[in-house]
Amino acid sequence: MSSVAPVKPVTACVLIIGNEILSGRTQDVNLAFIARSLNERGIQVREARTIPDVEAVIVDTLRSVSASFDYVFTTGGIGPTHDDITAECVAKAFSVPLITHPDIAARIRRYAEQRGLAPEVIETSLRMARVPEGAGLIDTEVGAPGFNIGNVYVMAGIPAVMQSMIRLLAPKLTGAMPVRSRSIGAYVGESLVAEPLRAIQDRHPTMDVGSYPFSEEGRYGTTLVIRGTDEAQLESVLGEIRDMLVSLGAETIARE
Amino acid sequence: MSSVAPVKPVTACVLIIGNEILSGRTQDVNLAFIARSLNERGIQVREARTIPDVEAVIVDTLRSVSASFDYVFTTGGIGPTHDDITAECVAKAFSVPLITHPDIAARIRRYAEQRGLAPEVIETSLRMARVPEGAGLIDTEVGAPGFNIGNVYVMAGIPAVMQSMIRLLAPKLTGAMPVRSRSIGAYVGESLVAEPLRAIQDRHPTMDVGSYPFSEEGRYGTTLVIRGTDEAQLESVLGEIRDMLVSLGAETIARE
Repeated sequence: MSSVAPVKPVTACVLIIGNEILSGRTQDVNLAFIARSLNERGIQVREARTIPDVEAVIVDTLRSVSASFDYVFTTGGIGPTHDDITAECVAKAFSVPLITHPDIAARIRRYAEQRGLAPEVIETSLRMARVPEGAGLIDTEVGAPGFNIGNVYVMAGIPAVMQSMIRLLAPKLTGAMPVRSRSIGAYVGESLVAEPLRAIQDRHPTMDVGSYPFSEEGRYGTTLVIRGTDEAQLESVLGEIRDMLVSLGAETIARE
Repeated sequence: MSSVAPVKPVTACVLIIGNEILSGRTQDVNLAFIARSLNERGIQVREARTIPDVEAVIVDTLRSVSASFDYVFTTGGIGPTHDDITAECVAKAFSVPLITHPDIAARIRRYAEQRGLAPEVIETSLRMARVPEGAGLIDTEVGAPGFNIGNVYVMAGIPAVMQSMIRLLAPKLTGAMPVRSRSIGAYVGESLVAEPLRAIQDRHPTMDVGSYPFSEEGRYGTTLVIRGTDEAQLESVLGEIRDMLVSLGAETIARE
């Protein structure tokens, strides 16, 4: 029996929904933003999947990952066009009907009336008010709201809209201890530091020690990153790594 | 019975392996490059998964996706440090031993001797020569080679190295008809074009018609993208979409 109960990590999976990401036409930037935002709340993104706008794939993936992770965050497919099918897929995954949410519908009508849009265009915009029955809303300062059902949080794919959603949403989520990091760079090859680094990792199994090669202004180097929840231990391991680099005669530099 | 045999698409899954992508510390740019390169060969990326440097997750995911897609391409985790575990995971997934490949080892020794590296550093670098027994090599103009076993292609995570690998590799892969695209932009909201666009999509079920909002110099608009293998049909659907936009009174613009 351990005298200290281990802290159970809180995990998340990100689903990036959209043919335009899989075709390489659009560069995803949402995963990195979501990961950093959740990390601040003590929620660790453990997997991300990029999937196409295909109903069976979205429904099956939602069912699978919502059972395996504490949280699921989706981006994409909640606009008004025929290829925006995320809302109906989430409803199917949770076996509930798709309804028109009165608050979102009222907001869309208000917006549309201010701009004098034609009735048939307003009708189409109301596709963005469809949510699974029982869903809560995810607020945003720009665009139409997202929604939440069970452990699944459905957000827009447009980065500015998604970022507004997660900024407003993240403070309401329950996480564990946030994972923090320390980094240090050195103008050495990874092979030179590999063995001493492995020894440091072995001495600190609760820390995650990573090594990433870089090239800057024509010089090659390695960034060493320590990740963990204990600030004092992070500083202590950073000190060990700095000492190790100095003992190898390496020139160290600050690295983000 | 159909008189024309349908062309079976050739599919791929991309596995992005690395804690640094999942933590949001590093922005992945490999997926988009791989997707565009494969698309030119008629291979469609149908799913991408970003997974951590955790053996059980890598092995399970490799087994699952290599059974579900024609090709699997991995990036990351083939350097010389303790967190580079992709090679041993691929060997486990295929139930074959991990061996030191003589050609890669010779190349690493030659490089190390030219630079006068210490024997223990050379020993560490030789971790990059470990491949599953029976694997073929994926050549590169920079860094150590990747490898291939079964339908799995294992590449570096550093974009410059990965790009060299896929440039040399792609011409050797067997694909189907490449998927091409046409795009047109218009300064209209998605809701305005949603219904006519759905009608065009319904008339052309073998084409993939997508709609993506954009904001440029303070003006909002929508890019319409048609994807498919038949160039004549692409031009014809592009014409229909252009006519539809003109009939709505929308100002059209060229969009990539």
